[in-house]
Amino acid sequence: MSYYRAPLDNINFTLFDVLDAGRLAQCERFAEATPETLKAIIEEAGKLAENVLLPANKAGDSQGCSYDPETHSVKTADGFKEAYQTYREAGWSGLTASPEFGGQGLPHLLKFTIDELVCSSNLSFGMYPGLSHGAISALTEHASPELQQQYLGKLVAGDWSGTMCLTEPQCGTDLGLIRTRAQPAADGSYEITGTKIWITGGEHDMVENIIHLVLAKLPDAPEGTSGISLFVVPKFLLDGSRNTVFCGGLEHKMGINGSSTCVMNFEGARGWLVGEPNKGLRCMFTMMNAARLMVGIQGLGLAETGYQVSLDFARQRLQGRSVSGPKNPDGPADPIIVHPNVRRMLLRQKVIIEGSRAMVYWTGLHLDLSHADADEDRRHKSDDIVQLMTPVVKAFLTDEGFFSCDQALQVMGGAGFTRDWPVEQLLRDGRIARIYEGTNGIQALDLVGRKLLMRGGRLPGTYNAEMNDMLAGVGNEEHKQACGVFMKSLNNALTWLMSNAMTDPEQAATVAPILLRMYALTTLAVLWAKMADQSQKPETTEQYSSGFLQGKRKAANHFFSLFTPEIQALEVELSAGKDTIMAFADEEF
Amino acid sequence: MSYYRAPLDNINFTLFDVLDAGRLAQCERFAEATPETLKAIIEEAGKLAENVLLPANKAGDSQGCSYDPETHSVKTADGFKEAYQTYREAGWSGLTASPEFGGQGLPHLLKFTIDELVCSSNLSFGMYPGLSHGAISALTEHASPELQQQYLGKLVAGDWSGTMCLTEPQCGTDLGLIRTRAQPAADGSYEITGTKIWITGGEHDMVENIIHLVLAKLPDAPEGTSGISLFVVPKFLLDGSRNTVFCGGLEHKMGINGSSTCVMNFEGARGWLVGEPNKGLRCMFTMMNAARLMVGIQGLGLAETGYQVSLDFARQRLQGRSVSGPKNPDGPADPIIVHPNVRRMLLRQKVIIEGSRAMVYWTGLHLDLSHADADEDRRHKSDDIVQLMTPVVKAFLTDEGFFSCDQALQVMGGAGFTRDWPVEQLLRDGRIARIYEGTNGIQALDLVGRKLLMRGGRLPGTYNAEMNDMLAGVGNEEHKQACGVFMKSLNNALTWLMSNAMTDPEQAATVAPILLRMYALTTLAVLWAKMADQSQKPETTEQYSSGFLQGKRKAANHFFSLFTPEIQALEVELSAGKDTIMAFADEEF
Repeated sequence: MSYYRAPLDNINFTLFDVLDAGRLAQCERFAEATPETLKAIIEEAGKLAENVLLPANKAGDSQGCSYDPETHSVKTADGFKEAYQTYREAGWSGLTASPEFGGQGLPHLLKFTIDELVCSSNLSFGMYPGLSHGAISALTEHASPELQQQYLGKLVAGDWSGTMCLTEPQCGTDLGLIRTRAQPAADGSYEITGTKIWITGGEHDMVENIIHLVLAKLPDAPEGTSGISLFVVPKFLLDGSRNTVFCGGLEHKMGINGSSTCVMNFEGARGWLVGEPNKGLRCMFTMMNAARLMVGIQGLGLAETGYQVSLDFARQRLQGRSVSGPKNPDGPADPIIVHPNVRRMLLRQKVIIEGSRAMVYWTGLHLDLSHADADEDRRHKSDDIVQLMTPVVKAFLTDEGFFSCDQALQVMGGAGFTRDWPVEQLLRDGRIARIYEGTNGIQALDLVGRKLLMRGGRLPGTYNAEMNDMLAGVGNEEHKQACGVFMKSLNNALTWLMSNAMTDPEQAATVAPILLRMYALTTLAVLWAKMADQSQKPETTEQYSSGFLQGKRKAANHFFSLFTPEIQALEVELSAGKDTIMAFADEEF
Repeated sequence: MSYYRAPLDNINFTLFDVLDAGRLAQCERFAEATPETLKAIIEEAGKLAENVLLPANKAGDSQGCSYDPETHSVKTADGFKEAYQTYREAGWSGLTASPEFGGQGLPHLLKFTIDELVCSSNLSFGMYPGLSHGAISALTEHASPELQQQYLGKLVAGDWSGTMCLTEPQCGTDLGLIRTRAQPAADGSYEITGTKIWITGGEHDMVENIIHLVLAKLPDAPEGTSGISLFVVPKFLLDGSRNTVFCGGLEHKMGINGSSTCVMNFEGARGWLVGEPNKGLRCMFTMMNAARLMVGIQGLGLAETGYQVSLDFARQRLQGRSVSGPKNPDGPADPIIVHPNVRRMLLRQKVIIEGSRAMVYWTGLHLDLSHADADEDRRHKSDDIVQLMTPVVKAFLTDEGFFSCDQALQVMGGAGFTRDWPVEQLLRDGRIARIYEGTNGIQALDLVGRKLLMRGGRLPGTYNAEMNDMLAGVGNEEHKQACGVFMKSLNNALTWLMSNAMTDPEQAATVAPILLRMYALTTLAVLWAKMADQSQKPETTEQYSSGFLQGKRKAANHFFSLFTPEIQALEVELSAGKDTIMAFADEEF
């Protein structure tokens, strides 16, 4: 059962040794978020993950959610309700929310680490509070004080949960095609009518009330995305009466079976406008940007569990002999971790996971600094990093999280393919993260079409400066030179883009996923150099075992050996541009 | 329902235009296998796949097989029994089997194409006759005339089915650890006792009798793999009495749910020795080599279906507008096939699938020529190709088949993640093919540790000569030069291996998967050059549409654009050798 242990050493090393997250406590807003406090909270979250969420994970997958068409109600799997109660009572729902509404006002970075632990132990469970968090953000930033007063307290306390209702059968990526309508009523509210699909937590049995944030169109709204407004639509109105929004059924999915994915029918349901009319998409993007980082963390969390399970398996499964002579001569065979190809599969997981963790936590740190840093210029630069890295984190961590779990399964051979082991579920659960909150292809377009051009195109400059800052302190010349190769390839790619894509948006759209991957690998390269460097600093060596620290240096070496050829290949592939892809006529596929 | 159409044009183009499979009919043994006959048989098999096997596929996944512990019996999903009856009655079971036992003696290459169609439409179904085919091969090559007389007729007719019983709980890859025992009985038979797991088709309800081929150890057999013998153990003895071999349960798996994967308990079951004592592994390898090519074809078959489904979806799903201006101005949005990143995902599938099809059919052609060519030297050279390519085909087609289905799912976004569409099942079903019949890591070791050294190390030379022969006829200089890059990288890698790995087997084991991939990509490069070239020949242009043929040329261009950077990166990665992988002590992972 207990196949996962919260990786506290790895998290603490990343946060406090590598990224110096201790500086957050120097910001006025986070004065209480000292390293000691954060470490203590993370340790508690680790216990929650190991002892409460993990035990419910398997039932979530095998039982899934069940729908009763008579009552339009959804029952969650055994253990979910109890796990949610524990989660709520311990106050995890309001970690980053404003103290004004009962939250604890702690840094987003802390929430990122908690999210990792939750996703590692029970991704399906994590979706419910994850969506509530999005609803809290949207209401906090865009709703009127009256709506905030009505909804935020219960949401922050976890008594109620939230949803995001965007997708409809005819529109997923392209929200301009939305058909759900909002008809003004005499009392200032609206009647919402339409069908939404893919609504996570749209209906379930763990809370008293569910608060839907719904995109819909006002009468005579402009065509396309500039005619969309955001509404809050509760399942139960404040007077306790049932609103006319009903779950019409559940999706049957490849994974995340414990998460209820609902068809929601709005039948003239009463709702209230959030923010300005026709500006709903902007409000929704507030939620979505936070959600995108969270989805990246899902990929990381699943991958960490896959690594732990496959590493344990490789240490215990006896099969064959080392080609360099028996390593377990008294046993019938050697543990498979002696075999080079098994090590290759394990180490690819390790360098991806630990590098990715550093990347997303680094982004989370800048998310907090972008709000809390005393210096305005530094706040803006931190926001540059967050804007640039959000699509990179979302796409890279979910793609690589999936492929990392795939390698974990392969290490385990036939055992990995059975439902007796948790890895095949990780692979199925993780597949969706590459799709929702904007497919990874959309993330790449966001990077190239929006983020690179933002603020006069200054984001790549801010990024380069930050990378150079990190590298400046690195002592290992080989690592520095290797990072130079990554940065050179990345900047060559940007130059190619400037020359070729400015006048031809199809070029930009074609190479976008390649550029996104180059940003990710370059960030990992610099962070691996930094991690290897930090592992030798006296303040670090006294806290961790020598095996842990040597593992960091050796992993950095392996990262450069593995990915230096790839970054150069990506540069070549990118500079081939669109020609061979756009050349095909429909009948030539 | 009908989401798959047998790709007859692609199959025929590959067989008869590109590979000149017509030459088989010039071999005495295959005089009847004219292109016309083969095409007619393939067309019939296409109807079987579309009309009989495909409709049963979904029930196989959702119902799976069910086990009754009272009777030790296994019930297959709705429609499987009827589909098997149709398959058997139409004579598909004995396609390549010897006419002496009722078979049709047709080429293996024909069976490869039929296997592709079967795997595309219903992989789980295909496992049952697939295993029977393995049993037929082993008995035909190794059993005594008496055993052949007793078992082959019914197996070839499909009245009985066969299994391969190798794996035990403590031994998968490492068969030296087998514990199943064979005790000689007075009448020349043996009593087999032990537990086998992962036995495909070990028990089911579609045939009268099941014939198990079982690896076990004789008393006082040598330790390890040189002490294993092969036995035939029928479920029902020839006198009709029940033998003491029973199914003890089913595995619960990520996919191939329609295929019964059994725990088999041999409780002093009566069996007969096949081949010589202690030479069982050699006999089993006869089955396994054929089975490995078949498993490669599973990857291809699934990928073809994934491509068809995702291509249809991309043509019909309206979402967003082309960045170069609306392509469907009268509709609410453009079909997503206009978007560069969707095209990238579709075209990667296309170049992998069509290239892989050419690779495995080319290998299948040489399998037939290795037996049937009139010239002895040519027979040996064909066998060189088959030996070298078997691990390459198995590993590359199953890895890339899986990743191709993964791209198909991504094209479809959220729809692909639901069970309403067939693609998520393809991904789950295909995951096992990278593991069974020797994991893909084992395939790489087979290539480097056995095949490269075989027959005085002449196999790479035979391969190079064959590649150069194919390229000699190619008119397009750019394609020829591009192929030169692939062959140069491959041969540099072989040179590195000679210098570094001869004295250090860990080097060879470490880089083996990289070298395997280089062999696969180089083969695809040459075959794509050849396909593009053939698409312009008059005898070909008169048979196919111009869109089909132009698609081949454009796909060849895209293949070179996509994979030339990778082959060079693989060469660099390979030459980094084992250092950063073997450096890790256990506590450093």
